[in-house]
Amino acid sequence: MENIEKLLKKFREISYLNSALSLLQWDQRTYLPPDSGSDRSEVIGYLSSEYQRKSTSNEIEEIMDKIDQGELNQADKRIYSLIFRNYKKLKNIPPELYLKYTKAISRAQFYWLKAKKEENYEIFKPYLKDNIELSKEIAAANGYIENPYDYFLDTYDYGITERKIENLISTFKDELIDLTKRIFASRQVDDSFLYDNYSTESQKKLCKHILEKFTFDFNNGRYDESEHPFTISITRDDVRITTKFNPNNFTSSLYGTIHECGHALYEMNIDKNYKWTPISQGASFSIHESQSRLLENLIGKSFPFIKYLFDKTKNYFENMQQIKLMDFYKAINAVKKQPIRIEADEVTYNLHIFIRFELESALLKNNINLDDLPKMWNEKMNKYLNIVPKNYSEGILQDIHWAGGKFGYFPSYMLGNLISSQFFQKLLSEKKNAFETVSTGNFEEVIDWLKNNVYKHGALYDTEELIKKVTGHTLSSESFMNYLNIKYSEIYDIS
Amino acid sequence: MENIEKLLKKFREISYLNSALSLLQWDQRTYLPPDSGSDRSEVIGYLSSEYQRKSTSNEIEEIMDKIDQGELNQADKRIYSLIFRNYKKLKNIPPELYLKYTKAISRAQFYWLKAKKEENYEIFKPYLKDNIELSKEIAAANGYIENPYDYFLDTYDYGITERKIENLISTFKDELIDLTKRIFASRQVDDSFLYDNYSTESQKKLCKHILEKFTFDFNNGRYDESEHPFTISITRDDVRITTKFNPNNFTSSLYGTIHECGHALYEMNIDKNYKWTPISQGASFSIHESQSRLLENLIGKSFPFIKYLFDKTKNYFENMQQIKLMDFYKAINAVKKQPIRIEADEVTYNLHIFIRFELESALLKNNINLDDLPKMWNEKMNKYLNIVPKNYSEGILQDIHWAGGKFGYFPSYMLGNLISSQFFQKLLSEKKNAFETVSTGNFEEVIDWLKNNVYKHGALYDTEELIKKVTGHTLSSESFMNYLNIKYSEIYDIS
Repeated sequence: MENIEKLLKKFREISYLNSALSLLQWDQRTYLPPDSGSDRSEVIGYLSSEYQRKSTSNEIEEIMDKIDQGELNQADKRIYSLIFRNYKKLKNIPPELYLKYTKAISRAQFYWLKAKKEENYEIFKPYLKDNIELSKEIAAANGYIENPYDYFLDTYDYGITERKIENLISTFKDELIDLTKRIFASRQVDDSFLYDNYSTESQKKLCKHILEKFTFDFNNGRYDESEHPFTISITRDDVRITTKFNPNNFTSSLYGTIHECGHALYEMNIDKNYKWTPISQGASFSIHESQSRLLENLIGKSFPFIKYLFDKTKNYFENMQQIKLMDFYKAINAVKKQPIRIEADEVTYNLHIFIRFELESALLKNNINLDDLPKMWNEKMNKYLNIVPKNYSEGILQDIHWAGGKFGYFPSYMLGNLISSQFFQKLLSEKKNAFETVSTGNFEEVIDWLKNNVYKHGALYDTEELIKKVTGHTLSSESFMNYLNIKYSEIYDIS
Repeated sequence: MENIEKLLKKFREISYLNSALSLLQWDQRTYLPPDSGSDRSEVIGYLSSEYQRKSTSNEIEEIMDKIDQGELNQADKRIYSLIFRNYKKLKNIPPELYLKYTKAISRAQFYWLKAKKEENYEIFKPYLKDNIELSKEIAAANGYIENPYDYFLDTYDYGITERKIENLISTFKDELIDLTKRIFASRQVDDSFLYDNYSTESQKKLCKHILEKFTFDFNNGRYDESEHPFTISITRDDVRITTKFNPNNFTSSLYGTIHECGHALYEMNIDKNYKWTPISQGASFSIHESQSRLLENLIGKSFPFIKYLFDKTKNYFENMQQIKLMDFYKAINAVKKQPIRIEADEVTYNLHIFIRFELESALLKNNINLDDLPKMWNEKMNKYLNIVPKNYSEGILQDIHWAGGKFGYFPSYMLGNLISSQFFQKLLSEKKNAFETVSTGNFEEVIDWLKNNVYKHGALYDTEELIKKVTGHTLSSESFMNYLNIKYSEIYDIS
């Protein structure tokens, strides 16, 4: 057997472990009985240790040593390099530290949820502290002592640094804040009819219909409910998404579902030849978010899609009978002083990310006293969005990320927003007519374009390589700001 | 650390793996997307190999070598002995054979389901052949060459042999056949009203109510639907049961649910101090079945329970308003020419086991040409029950056990029936009044008796030891036949 095949055989075992871990996590977040959470943490902790052990074994090391990269084809070279990256990162972390960290983040998520339910930040604080300390230790073990934040950014997006993100933000921050202010100063859109009684059963049916239209494959996936919506890939052919239904607003579950559907379509449509290899995953977290945000916003909140959706809603909701198409389009796209990130509109969404980016980079530099964190959060909310959160759930406790140790993840959403606009601009330049016919229910051509240009490649390319390949340009905020300026000057009188 | 603690630490890791495997299997039988079955088999195959490797590692061997059993207390001695038994059985099986077997039974279950759906025994036949051959190899690896069947019987019930079962059957076979004939020759009970439209939603509510009454703990367990009802313990504090609803008959799902509830209560109530040790499981498969059958039949089909149930059904089903209590009691206990084992009444159930016992012991001795198996099945059905199955689903393809490699499991049901009567007789002798008050909804005292006498011990004792401890007697068919004779001579005119 050739060495690359031997390496892939080892990786397959690692993938099997990963698949079991993914199912344990999916179940933890959907169906696990309430009193068995700590047992589940122990099982996940153990299998994660095994995952680290397998990924950094002497056997893997020896096989990699024997491989001459010069002799590999493009895909095999990529496979080698992805396995090596993972090997290096995990090898540098002492197993005891890794286990400690895995258990800490599992525990912290439990106490975060408790703190959120009880509106008591103090419950979460000590666990947040542990997460920060352990994260810094992990970064240090990998040589990131000065700026541990860079370590985690690199984990989510190979090659991305705090400096790069700061530079990117500086290209559009002022313009975005200015646009937001002008919108808030203009006449507001009436979206009150979206907040009414909308039967959960009908919401489910509508969401399932939209999932089917977007080619979500129920033979290779599932759609369940959970407190916090997520997507998880158990295997390439078993991709599961969740949503949460709000009986007073059908657009929250619908757009949450479309967001997760974007993640799922990406995973489901990676070239089957890459199955059980490290290419069978998203290129990076920012590219992943670009695919969810593209479906949710660029397509999902576009006029052609809203037109299709508008007709459909009348089959499901009595309340929609009297509404006019253009009012519906505007309501869906209303820009609002919304304290909750995941409910935020396209315009203000990145402002939410700026807040988190500034806070988490400071947290990992130990520049924040945790006692002051809720206050600092609220100050930044006020500064960027002119909002004062009413309570912790609307403020510091709204996101699960820091509880899950995911410092450095938030910028992926912002990058995803920028990238999705770049991809969308390219899609429009090639498939303008196909895109317009989304209004008649023809989704396939648009999805096919995504399959052929993005999905199928999986992790064959890194973030910036893929952007270049798809669009011919480098990562920038230009498409995004153009898109916002044009779209929202049609919806709001901001001239 | 003491050696026994070291051994328990190793066993805990094995338990973690087992917990992950259990969840993979639960999911496979409930929620797995249809097109990802073969991936799941691979993941299960890999983790099963890891389970074998861990259970038979040199480290475990070395720790066991250092332990002086004479110095252990009762529980630790038992822990040592159970770990050693498992070690020995798995150590004797070559890892390649074990992996081959694990994959074969996963595949065979898939093709069994297909064969059953398509009513085509030929689809299943080659996989059944593989299962038989591999099972024989596994038995041979453990030194069982002459009679591989004894190997599997011993796996399910330590110390049980084909000869022992034959002897036991000979003590009541003729009497049971005679009783059945006399019942069939007498005036039959009218149970037609049980077969009507019974809303699935109401069935669910009734079943949940009964589960709660039986103290099934939803904080430490789940209740889902699946094609084939089962119980699985993910951990001691996460025990899951399933059922299947039949819209034309509520007693099928109800008694299926009570059966699985019996298994679940056993697992949920093992002394918490034994958690993560090999004592935290049922004493044996026959004891496990005794607990499910006890709840389903001895309690669930008793007059006090039926009285309670009768009143409840009126809250859920319009169709039950006109029915009289005694007619309901008789209908629930109707003895019928029922081709399906899991639907069989208490009287004919063991006859179904005789058929399977005779066939599977012959199958493992290679005394049956697989082409003839369906015919032989039907002949035995005709001989024991005077039934000619209409098709394969009613005949040879009705049970999943052989597809799952579970040769030797069926006798556990029969042993369970006998043991449940022995336990029940003891329960009545101590708690006659408490049992009578089941009719008023007081289930707790009866369940407490089971907790204190059976559940809490887990696998602290082997089958025959536990029977002795609980009843003071040895395993026998006497209680069972007494119970049947008294109960059914009141329902049927068979004097």
